[in-house]
Amino acid sequence: MSPDFLSLPLRPGKPRATGLTHVLDKGLPVSQTRALLEAAGEFVDIWKFGWGTAYLDRELDAKLTLLARHGVQACLGGTLLEIAWSQGRVEECMAWAAEVGVPLVEVSRGVMPMSLADKTRLIARAARSFTVLTEVGFKDPARRLDLWQWKDEVRHDLAAGAWLVITEGRESGTVGTYDASGEVIEEIVDAVVGVAGPERLLFEAPRRDQQAWCISRFGSDVNVGNIALDDVVNLEALRLGLRADTAVIRPAPASW
Amino acid sequence: MSPDFLSLPLRPGKPRATGLTHVLDKGLPVSQTRALLEAAGEFVDIWKFGWGTAYLDRELDAKLTLLARHGVQACLGGTLLEIAWSQGRVEECMAWAAEVGVPLVEVSRGVMPMSLADKTRLIARAARSFTVLTEVGFKDPARRLDLWQWKDEVRHDLAAGAWLVITEGRESGTVGTYDASGEVIEEIVDAVVGVAGPERLLFEAPRRDQQAWCISRFGSDVNVGNIALDDVVNLEALRLGLRADTAVIRPAPASW
Amino acid sequence: MSPDFLSLPLRPGKPRATGLTHVLDKGLPVSQTRALLEAAGEFVDIWKFGWGTAYLDRELDAKLTLLARHGVQACLGGTLLEIAWSQGRVEECMAWAAEVGVPLVEVSRGVMPMSLADKTRLIARAARSFTVLTEVGFKDPARRLDLWQWKDEVRHDLAAGAWLVITEGRESGTVGTYDASGEVIEEIVDAVVGVAGPERLLFEAPRRDQQAWCISRFGSDVNVGNIALDDVVNLEALRLGLRADTAVIRPAPASW
Repeated sequence: MSPDFLSLPLRPGKPRATGLTHVLDKGLPVSQTRALLEAAGEFVDIWKFGWGTAYLDRELDAKLTLLARHGVQACLGGTLLEIAWSQGRVEECMAWAAEVGVPLVEVSRGVMPMSLADKTRLIARAARSFTVLTEVGFKDPARRLDLWQWKDEVRHDLAAGAWLVITEGRESGTVGTYDASGEVIEEIVDAVVGVAGPERLLFEAPRRDQQAWCISRFGSDVNVGNIALDDVVNLEALRLGLRADTAVIRPAPASW
Repeated sequence: MSPDFLSLPLRPGKPRATGLTHVLDKGLPVSQTRALLEAAGEFVDIWKFGWGTAYLDRELDAKLTLLARHGVQACLGGTLLEIAWSQGRVEECMAWAAEVGVPLVEVSRGVMPMSLADKTRLIARAARSFTVLTEVGFKDPARRLDLWQWKDEVRHDLAAGAWLVITEGRESGTVGTYDASGEVIEEIVDAVVGVAGPERLLFEAPRRDQQAWCISRFGSDVNVGNIALDDVVNLEALRLGLRADTAVIRPAPASW
Repeated sequence: MSPDFLSLPLRPGKPRATGLTHVLDKGLPVSQTRALLEAAGEFVDIWKFGWGTAYLDRELDAKLTLLARHGVQACLGGTLLEIAWSQGRVEECMAWAAEVGVPLVEVSRGVMPMSLADKTRLIARAARSFTVLTEVGFKDPARRLDLWQWKDEVRHDLAAGAWLVITEGRESGTVGTYDASGEVIEEIVDAVVGVAGPERLLFEAPRRDQQAWCISRFGSDVNVGNIALDDVVNLEALRLGLRADTAVIRPAPASW
């Protein structure tokens, strides 16, 4: 039934190793989760329960069942684990995550005063029970890592057992690899790509222009994250060049 | 089933006297209303049918039934009553609201040239049939009340029978107690809190930074309003310190 | 059941010749499409499958059936046809659109380097099989048409067979008839209205202030487009003067 009259980039099917789409769930009701997965589940790879919302989600079991059925990997937001760490409750948090059946956890130090050594230890602990995503970058726009710190932390995270390293952008796209107006800070991106390659990185890119930048720079199979749930189809259109921002501009065709 | 491994602020159950969350409905379909209430109804206290949308809502009866079942109080947007007032149709508006079963009405003068004396009279009239919320502040960014006018109007509204006084922010968060960029004008907030205390006020705070400011300043049980429907869970996370903006920063724990 | 205590502008029923509302679908799941149409389908006239999303929509058949049942005309986004044109696949695209049953297509040259002569030819071709909307204006903020080009292209499009001409605004409302901050460029609007009259134009107006401007300038039955799906009821409230931005300010009533 799908049309096929256009020449478009080939996209790998799920489960994918690259070209991952990581979405930000702020508390979507379960019936809308079902609707979204039926409509566009094939475009979604990782489903982040934003911040500490998993802790509040009364429909968590039902959502995890749906996600598993659609081949979408659920992930705890890094802030929840940071808070658990700050309260000395890491083991309790991980026991709960394992019990409810979350396959991925994110290890970050964007909020709490966690040393890199402590983060490394936390990654290693988490990796015993879960697939681990880590995040680099602070949530406070006033706190910025130096270039060498970006590279160093990415290297450490991968060595400690991270599957992928997420570059911070927040929901707003105005911190981490972005300046306060949302423009990409290219030297940071270049630095971390120099260390890890784009395949081991996942760029938070909540805004359309940021998504288009990532796709234009690294191709349709770049890993991008913090995608709003109602932008999932839009992002796939951007990956395939089906929206102005990433469309391949061609001269007039010889005929039609 | 809910996890309990974190130490978080205690939140009162519904019906609550403080810590109220007031949401802005712009015309949500009834099936999504049901989904939202099933997922997060315990976090919602007051449901405002924005502006005059209640007048247009073909599913009003079904939505009111759902709201009542979930212990959420429905409220007419103040603009609808202002328009009815300007057309000499106050009694007709109130008769209709009573007939459909809306328990709360908002009395405001943010749009129409209503004197404070007329507003006081309208509050007293409305209070005979409904629980009354009033609003202080104009919707036009060029019209700003002086500090003494803020205090005076809050005092008048409470004396006339208001349960709570709402401070204007609009959907945009750029008027009333906010400047054009959305920054809180703290001297206005201080002034009205000096008159009424935070318990009798409900701060319109549509933006995350505005919500975080209210929570940081007045605690997790501050009353906030004009919350977008897809931000309900996010707001609860902010109240509980489960997002970076309001998380309690602690030193590294002794152990985990 | 609908209330009728207010004096409001009369709005024509569907199918309407003017006062059209054109919405932007970015990939809404079918169950939410159903919910929206049941709640507010009477307010929607044209449903645009944004950019190339129709090509990706796994629920296209079901959505088209729903739209037809609610008297809403489905339309292909102009970018999809531009891409098909650039790949020499115009006939294939139109054959597919006819087969799935899309009644409207949009012909634009906002992305690809299509000459006005080629656009005219494409309009004429499309008009043999579909009702045709055309669009004037570029998506790149750096490319701006002169005033005489705006007028010339609108005239050409209508002569070539367009039912309505859409003025470009994008999802952001920052190009075409808007400056980079989203302010209306009134001399462009005046120019195209001088050529075609507001009845043959449809103004993309994704932002509330832009919608309010169109309504204040051309009346409640102006044709506006690129309306976000959750703004449909809000727009109808604006058309009827049920929100501050377009409410008719009256002096205090003699009595109530």
